[in-house]
Amino acid sequence: MMNKGLLIVVSGPSGAGKGTICKQLLKVEPDVMLSVSATTRGPRVGEVEGANYYFLSKDEFEALIAKDEFLEYANVYGNYYGTPKKYVQEKTLQGKNVLLEIDIQGALQIKEKYPQGVFIFILPPSMKELRHRIITRGTETEAAIEQRFKCAFEEINYVRKYDYCVINDDVDTAVDKVKAIIKAEQCKITEDIDSIISRFKEEI
Amino acid sequence: MMNKGLLIVVSGPSGAGKGTICKQLLKVEPDVMLSVSATTRGPRVGEVEGANYYFLSKDEFEALIAKDEFLEYANVYGNYYGTPKKYVQEKTLQGKNVLLEIDIQGALQIKEKYPQGVFIFILPPSMKELRHRIITRGTETEAAIEQRFKCAFEEINYVRKYDYCVINDDVDTAVDKVKAIIKAEQCKITEDIDSIISRFKEEI
Repeated sequence: MMNKGLLIVVSGPSGAGKGTICKQLLKVEPDVMLSVSATTRGPRVGEVEGANYYFLSKDEFEALIAKDEFLEYANVYGNYYGTPKKYVQEKTLQGKNVLLEIDIQGALQIKEKYPQGVFIFILPPSMKELRHRIITRGTETEAAIEQRFKCAFEEINYVRKYDYCVINDDVDTAVDKVKAIIKAEQCKITEDIDSIISRFKEEI
Repeated sequence: MMNKGLLIVVSGPSGAGKGTICKQLLKVEPDVMLSVSATTRGPRVGEVEGANYYFLSKDEFEALIAKDEFLEYANVYGNYYGTPKKYVQEKTLQGKNVLLEIDIQGALQIKEKYPQGVFIFILPPSMKELRHRIITRGTETEAAIEQRFKCAFEEINYVRKYDYCVINDDVDTAVDKVKAIIKAEQCKITEDIDSIISRFKEEI
């Protein structure tokens, strides 16, 4: 406990508000840093290597996949995106808490490879509110909205695979809960407790 | 999650400061109530049945022991003290969080009977500080102080049996951590999650 940082995975259906919660959390919690992903898409204007993304060639990315160097990855419209294992390991060893906002498929991949992560599922306050958020979000067709809504509804079943569930009816309340989860997880008894007991014993 | 209250067990060696933390927590957290114990000792002036203690006869107490109605009990200088299972069950079913400050032996008894409790171990910042606190606490002989200190030192090994560990170097910081643990535990995914999923499904 206390020495090593945490990997905090914030996930949930689209429209639940995970993006807003993460942005707010990063503002108020200086001890939490956003995970930097790797991608094969080219940098956009203003994007900085190592800050926004690690920009890799397709060959480089696939070599890392072969070496099992990603906690998760996906191919989206021909470009790879992934979370480098090394980055998370380095930062958490330095005592930093790494935040990752990711869809449910990605979160479940991470859970297999990094079960010691803290998995938080963001739920909308109701399905009615979720539908409202999906509708007001974009200029999609009615069929696309219906499709997205159905998908979100199915995804809610995956909440059972997570450690925590935060209902996002008010962003500040939801962020407070995520902050509390991080603080509590830092007090959890893990194998690190032995080093604390040893410290007490050495004093005598 | 969210519907049922928690049993919060705050424990640790004498001198760690669990009493101070609990008193402060009860002041700032209206959703947390102190557990009411049963005892066979007579009421002192001003003590109220059901508020300070449930006052029982020895026969009544032993009948409850026989029916396995205590989460834990102990005989201290000829008087019984115990935590009634029924009290904790009723309050937590009503959604109340019940706080119990107890020594390590009692906490371990509770863990066997009520593993869904939240077990928090309070540690002093150092053994030096613990010795200082034991010395300044009372008018004990040097031998008694040494005995108490040795006992506390041995008890620290039991921290592994707990869920959380809070180092009490500053009372406010320690209370904040206990508050965060309670908030986080209320977001934990438990079997109650099914009722939340059902609520979402019924909406459709």
